[in-house]
Amino acid sequence: MEKIYQYIDENLNRFIEELFILVRQPSISARWEGVEDCCKLLTGMMEKIGIKPRVLPMGGKRNPPLVYGEILNPEAKRTLLIYGHYDVQPPEPLDAWDSPPFQPTIRNGRMYGRGTADNKGQFFAHFKAIESVLKIRGKLPVNVKFLLDPEEEVGSPSLNEFCRQNKPLFAADMALNSDGPMDTSGRPRLSFGNRGVLYVEVNAQGANMDLHSGNFGGPIPNPAWRLVEFLSTLRKPDGTVAIEGFYDNIVPPTPKEKEMMAKIPFDEKKFMEKYGLKKFAPPENLGYMEKLMFRPTLNIAGFTSGYGGQGSKTVLPCKAMLKMDMRLVVNQTPEDIFEKYLRHMKKHGFDDLEVKMLNTYAPSRTSVDHPLAPRFAEAIRQGFQKDPVLIPAGGGSFPGAAIRSILNIPILSVPYGNADENNHAPNENLAIDCFKGGIRTTAALFFKLAE
Amino acid sequence: MEKIYQYIDENLNRFIEELFILVRQPSISARWEGVEDCCKLLTGMMEKIGIKPRVLPMGGKRNPPLVYGEILNPEAKRTLLIYGHYDVQPPEPLDAWDSPPFQPTIRNGRMYGRGTADNKGQFFAHFKAIESVLKIRGKLPVNVKFLLDPEEEVGSPSLNEFCRQNKPLFAADMALNSDGPMDTSGRPRLSFGNRGVLYVEVNAQGANMDLHSGNFGGPIPNPAWRLVEFLSTLRKPDGTVAIEGFYDNIVPPTPKEKEMMAKIPFDEKKFMEKYGLKKFAPPENLGYMEKLMFRPTLNIAGFTSGYGGQGSKTVLPCKAMLKMDMRLVVNQTPEDIFEKYLRHMKKHGFDDLEVKMLNTYAPSRTSVDHPLAPRFAEAIRQGFQKDPVLIPAGGGSFPGAAIRSILNIPILSVPYGNADENNHAPNENLAIDCFKGGIRTTAALFFKLAE
Repeated sequence: MEKIYQYIDENLNRFIEELFILVRQPSISARWEGVEDCCKLLTGMMEKIGIKPRVLPMGGKRNPPLVYGEILNPEAKRTLLIYGHYDVQPPEPLDAWDSPPFQPTIRNGRMYGRGTADNKGQFFAHFKAIESVLKIRGKLPVNVKFLLDPEEEVGSPSLNEFCRQNKPLFAADMALNSDGPMDTSGRPRLSFGNRGVLYVEVNAQGANMDLHSGNFGGPIPNPAWRLVEFLSTLRKPDGTVAIEGFYDNIVPPTPKEKEMMAKIPFDEKKFMEKYGLKKFAPPENLGYMEKLMFRPTLNIAGFTSGYGGQGSKTVLPCKAMLKMDMRLVVNQTPEDIFEKYLRHMKKHGFDDLEVKMLNTYAPSRTSVDHPLAPRFAEAIRQGFQKDPVLIPAGGGSFPGAAIRSILNIPILSVPYGNADENNHAPNENLAIDCFKGGIRTTAALFFKLAE
Repeated sequence: MEKIYQYIDENLNRFIEELFILVRQPSISARWEGVEDCCKLLTGMMEKIGIKPRVLPMGGKRNPPLVYGEILNPEAKRTLLIYGHYDVQPPEPLDAWDSPPFQPTIRNGRMYGRGTADNKGQFFAHFKAIESVLKIRGKLPVNVKFLLDPEEEVGSPSLNEFCRQNKPLFAADMALNSDGPMDTSGRPRLSFGNRGVLYVEVNAQGANMDLHSGNFGGPIPNPAWRLVEFLSTLRKPDGTVAIEGFYDNIVPPTPKEKEMMAKIPFDEKKFMEKYGLKKFAPPENLGYMEKLMFRPTLNIAGFTSGYGGQGSKTVLPCKAMLKMDMRLVVNQTPEDIFEKYLRHMKKHGFDDLEVKMLNTYAPSRTSVDHPLAPRFAEAIRQGFQKDPVLIPAGGGSFPGAAIRSILNIPILSVPYGNADENNHAPNENLAIDCFKGGIRTTAALFFKLAE
C-alpha cells in the first residue's frame, strides 16, 4: 500500500487540476443546466483512467444520462458498487460567494466551488484511487461498478424505476456512497443509513393579480393567510406533526444504535454557539442525535408571498408558494406519507390548494452488524489515520434506498467532505486533506474487500 | 367657465408633455431615490404657473422636502388646501411592465408610467386648473394652498409632527385630496374618509446561516415555522383578528352611510370574474362595501423565507420575514393598535421575534352632512359630466388624518384616476379623459367654493 500512497502524494496536485475541470462545468439539475455537457466530460475522464463508461439514458422527457462505469477483474471474488452523483445544487445567492461558484480556487488548503464536495470531489476521489492502484499494481483486487446519478439534487426521480429494470447490471456484494460531511470533530464517518425525503410544493391563489391592500383589503382572500391556515393544521402545539399516521411504525433506536449515538463526538454548547442557537427544537426529551437520525421532520424549505424587499409595500398578494421537505425514517415511505399529506389537506378542507410532489427518496438502513462493515472501518483508519465515528443513520437523504431496497445491496456511506463543506450553500468547499484521505481510503478498501 | 374649458382642451397635449417630464423623474421614497431632484423640478413648474412654492425640510436624518405652495387673492373669502404627494411606489417587478416605468408613453388614450396616477398626474391636474383659470380670468376666486408630501408611499412618517408645528401656515376652510381610483362604473367619486394603516415588519431568526435540511433538520428551529405559529395566534377560525381589543369602539355605518353604500354601483358577479375570485373573505354577513370601508384588516403583505425559485432546494432557512399592514377604521389609532399587537406578541410568548413599525396613518372621516360637500359634488358633475358616487370612506389610507385631526380641516377626496389605474402595481396608468375631467373639476370647484 505504501507505494500506492506515495503515488497519491506525488500526483495530488494534478488530481486537483483534473477535478477543477469537472467543477468548472455546471451541471445544475434543478434547471437542467450543463448536465449533458458534464456527462460527456465525465465519460472521457473515466476512459482515460481505465474505467469503462456507459451512458444510460433513463427515459422520460429529459432522458437524463446516468453514467455507469465498470472495471472488472475475472479473478476478483467481490464486487463493489459505488454510488455518486454528478449534478449540483443551484449556486444562488451568487453574491454570498467569496469566489465564483464555477471558477474553482484553492484558499487555505481548501478547494472552493459548487460541486467540490457535493458530489464531484467525492466520487472523483474513487476515480483517483482506481488510477493509483492500477498504476502501481496493474489491476484492482475487486470488481468495481459505478452508478453516477445525474439527478440526485432534484430527488433522482428516474432512479428507482431504472434500478428496477437494470438489476443485473448493478449486481454487487456491497455498495459504497461518499457524500455529505465528516464529523465536526474532524474524524471520518461510517454511516449505516439515511433518512428519506419527500419534497412538496403547495400553491395558493387569491385574486388573479396583486392588488392594493387598502383599496381592496378586507373582502378579498389573501393566499398567504390561506397557507398559514393550512400550515397551522400540520403541527400540534408541541411541534410534532399532526398528519394522521405520520409516525406509524417508526422504530426507536436499538441499544447498540443508542451506544453508537452516545459515542458520536458532540459538544452541544459549542455547536449552539457556532450556529447562533439559543435552544433546540422540541421535543425536549430526545437528544440531538436521535432527532436527527430516528425522527422524521416537516420542514418549511420556502414560503414566498407578496413583498420581500426593504421598507414597506402595501400589497395584497395574489399568490403564495410553500416548499416543504419531510425527512423520513425507516418504515415510512414517501408514497405513503404523501398520501397521508393529501388526505390531511382534504380532511381539513384545503382542496383549493395546488400540491405537487417534487421529489422523493425512501429511507435506507443497513444493519449495524453487517459482517463487511468492520473492513470499511479499517480502510478508513488506514486512509485518514483516524478512527471513524459510527453513525446509525445520517440525517440527510441519498438514493441509498434504491440500492438497498430495489437492488437489494447493503450500502454503507463514508463521506469524504469536511464538516464545514457548506453543501447546498454559498462557499461550498472540500479540504484537500479530506480529498487525499478519501483517495487513500478507497484504495485501502479495495484490498480489504478482497481479503 | 366655457372659455376656461376651451383653454384646457386647446392646451391638453402640452399639459401631458409637462406631466411626462415629472413622471420621468423617479421619486421612490421607499429607497429615497430621486425625491430631492423631483422636488426641484416641481417647484420650478409651480413658479412658472404662478404658484408660490416653498420647500420646507421636515427634519430628521433624511430631512424630506415638503413642498408648500400658495396662490392668494386678498378678495377671496375661502381658502382651499390641496393635499397631494410627489413620491411614488417602487416599480418592481420590472419585467411585468409593458413599457419602462419611468419612460411615460401614451397607449389607447392612457398615460402609462409610475406616478402617472399615484399621484403626480392627479395633483398636476390641480396645477393646470390654476393655470387655466389664471390665463382666462387673471386671478383665482379662492385662496389655494398646496401641501405636497414627499413621503406618502412610506407612510408620511414626518407629516404629523410637521403639521402640529405649522398649523397657521396650512390654515384653510376645506381640504381636497385627489388620489386613488374612481368608481369601476367610470363615474367619479366623492369620498368622505379613509381607513388608516399600520404597517409592521416582523423578523424571526433560526440559526445564523441557511443549513441543509437533511444534515441539520429536526433539532434546529425553523424561523418560518416560528412566524407561522405567531400568525396562527393572530386570527380566530372565523377569520377575525384575535388581538385583544382590536375591534374596540369600532362604529358601524349610520343609516345614511348604509344608504350611500347601497347606491355604489357594484356588480358582484362581474367583479369576481374580473379578479378571478371564487368567494369573498369572511365574515359572510357583511357586504363587500362594509368590509372595505367600516372594517379593519390584518393583511399579510409579504412572507419571505427560504427558497422561492423553481424546483426544489432542501434548505433549512435561517431567516423569515413578515410584512403586515392593518387597515384601521374610525376610533382605532395606529399607536394603540401597535401597542395591542406588541402586547399580543408578549402574551403569546413571541418575545423572540423582532418587530418594527414601518409606517402609519390614522383613519379619517368628514361628516357626510358637511355643508360644503354638495358644492364638491356639483363641481364634479360639471368637470366630468357625470354624477359622482358618494363614498362614506375609502378602503385605502391617505394622510387625511393629519389634515382632519391635527390641522382640524374637513377633507374630501375626489380621485381623478381611472378604476384600473394599477396603483402600486405594474403598468400604472392614468386615462387622458380622467386627467382632463380632473382639471375641469378643480377649476369648477374654485368658483363653487367662492359662492
